[in-house]
Amino acid sequence: MYIVPESAIADILTRPDAFDAVEKVFAAMSAGDAYNFPVIREAIGHEEALYGFKGGFDGVGKSLGLKAGGYWPHNLEKRGIINHQSTVFLFDPDTGKVAAMVGGNLLTALRTAAASSVSIKHLARKDAKVMGMIGAGHQAKFQLRHALETHNFEKVIGWNYHPEMLPSLAEVAAEFDLPFEAASLKGMVEADVVISMTSSFNPIFGAAHISDGTHIACMGTDTVGKQECDTDLIVKATIFTDEVAQSVTLGETQHAVAAGLKSRDDIFELGAVINGTHAGRKSENEITLFDGTGVGLQDLAVSASIVEIAKAKGIGMEVDF
Amino acid sequence: MYIVPESAIADILTRPDAFDAVEKVFAAMSAGDAYNFPVIREAIGHEEALYGFKGGFDGVGKSLGLKAGGYWPHNLEKRGIINHQSTVFLFDPDTGKVAAMVGGNLLTALRTAAASSVSIKHLARKDAKVMGMIGAGHQAKFQLRHALETHNFEKVIGWNYHPEMLPSLAEVAAEFDLPFEAASLKGMVEADVVISMTSSFNPIFGAAHISDGTHIACMGTDTVGKQECDTDLIVKATIFTDEVAQSVTLGETQHAVAAGLKSRDDIFELGAVINGTHAGRKSENEITLFDGTGVGLQDLAVSASIVEIAKAKGIGMEVDF
Repeated sequence: MYIVPESAIADILTRPDAFDAVEKVFAAMSAGDAYNFPVIREAIGHEEALYGFKGGFDGVGKSLGLKAGGYWPHNLEKRGIINHQSTVFLFDPDTGKVAAMVGGNLLTALRTAAASSVSIKHLARKDAKVMGMIGAGHQAKFQLRHALETHNFEKVIGWNYHPEMLPSLAEVAAEFDLPFEAASLKGMVEADVVISMTSSFNPIFGAAHISDGTHIACMGTDTVGKQECDTDLIVKATIFTDEVAQSVTLGETQHAVAAGLKSRDDIFELGAVINGTHAGRKSENEITLFDGTGVGLQDLAVSASIVEIAKAKGIGMEVDF
Repeated sequence: MYIVPESAIADILTRPDAFDAVEKVFAAMSAGDAYNFPVIREAIGHEEALYGFKGGFDGVGKSLGLKAGGYWPHNLEKRGIINHQSTVFLFDPDTGKVAAMVGGNLLTALRTAAASSVSIKHLARKDAKVMGMIGAGHQAKFQLRHALETHNFEKVIGWNYHPEMLPSLAEVAAEFDLPFEAASLKGMVEADVVISMTSSFNPIFGAAHISDGTHIACMGTDTVGKQECDTDLIVKATIFTDEVAQSVTLGETQHAVAAGLKSRDDIFELGAVINGTHAGRKSENEITLFDGTGVGLQDLAVSASIVEIAKAKGIGMEVDF
């Protein structure tokens, strides 16, 4: 089996590689060639940790396995290590033998950023000029960097609950020689594309903050109870997601669906747009919204790509297991 | 993290070590200090494979993790490797970081054998003399070897659907200088302890084949639809199991419970007997039956023991991950 430690990932995985892997696996999911297993997520009663497994099988990409790990809220304060800890294990689908182990922390950030970028490629207006960020935490920087690499924007605007964190977004904009402006939530009407990346349990923005023709990627809601955008925007927008089953239960559409404002049948797979079985954006005025809930197949796809590159570059190690 | 490959397990894990680990974790489960997560088991639509995850957390033994793998029915014919393939991954419950990876094939056989032996120690009559085997396949040999090491029997009798396989049981009996006799199913009335280890989907034996005072360990039923013993024996015997939730859904009691012949409340944890919170066998005439369904915590407990011994012996390898 092949081992790629966490410390090696940054030198291996490029943003285009993550993008390609995620785009392909969304397409395979929508075509019925890949599926995610039920997610296990347990509050283990120790260190207030949430631990679990996200597994799946991609019959086209031949990725089988899982990401295991979770959230240890006291890691940083107690031990100086990050709170999200995960590891990906790939298995040989022909034999059931373990095939690879890959550090899962950075790749989780990159696959999440890739997902919103894939949605921008397939759903944003081609003439989109202003990129709007809601949220300026650690993960928001990844989302912005991938977005700026995916599409040629002319300006970045950003809002954060703690405005003193906005300079981190300005730094990313500067990497692409783009101007950055702090914005109010109402000021988000200027944006042609919006990415929200918060851990909010109450709606931050809604229909009043988003102009017609905008594409929004809601990337923060991955748990029952969380919510970034008001249901009035969910009702107004055309909704796409990575996996409908997750979107309606623990994703951004959970509240609108529970309230009967949106039906499961009104939520489309981004993979269908990639495959051309859904037309995607239908007009310049339509608001499109991608609900990125995060699925195990993303992790497996990106890990498989990492292992392939690592082997070619001679990074990592082969272990007789 | 520490890696113990499959090939090293045979030199590390002794039967007493497996026994101790399984006995302790059954006790912890019953005391509420350890629990198994929901099991994921998927027919992935490739190679007719069944693949999944059995995870859990033992707050006393501090084992956190999962066994991943499954059943690849064409491995042996196509590739000359065994059909059951699994790997155990242990995590540090304090941080969420992966701590160890252990080959799971032999350990699964040993932990399954240990479970029936733990039941013999705690539920069989102390004067039991005749050990009866129903089933003579690969795993049956493990069960018998552990049983003969746990208790001083004077004779082994055995039945198998294919009687030509019985010499494999005779070989194990000979390892312990014990005589072996082929038996009919009716002849099982001679046995003081019976272990059944088959993959049957129809009852093989029932109340007519088992004498009063016998202890039976039913180890073959781990799937909805499987059945080794008739419901008349389930009704007559006092039932113990590793995990009640599994026993009534996919274990040996599933049919009697579904038929309303036995209630969930009439099924007791073997761990409660180990802890002394259940009296166990109450008379010399009572028939006790242990339904061994197999839980992830057994794998984690035995793996933790393997890692400890491997480190002490300098077997396996530390990998910077």
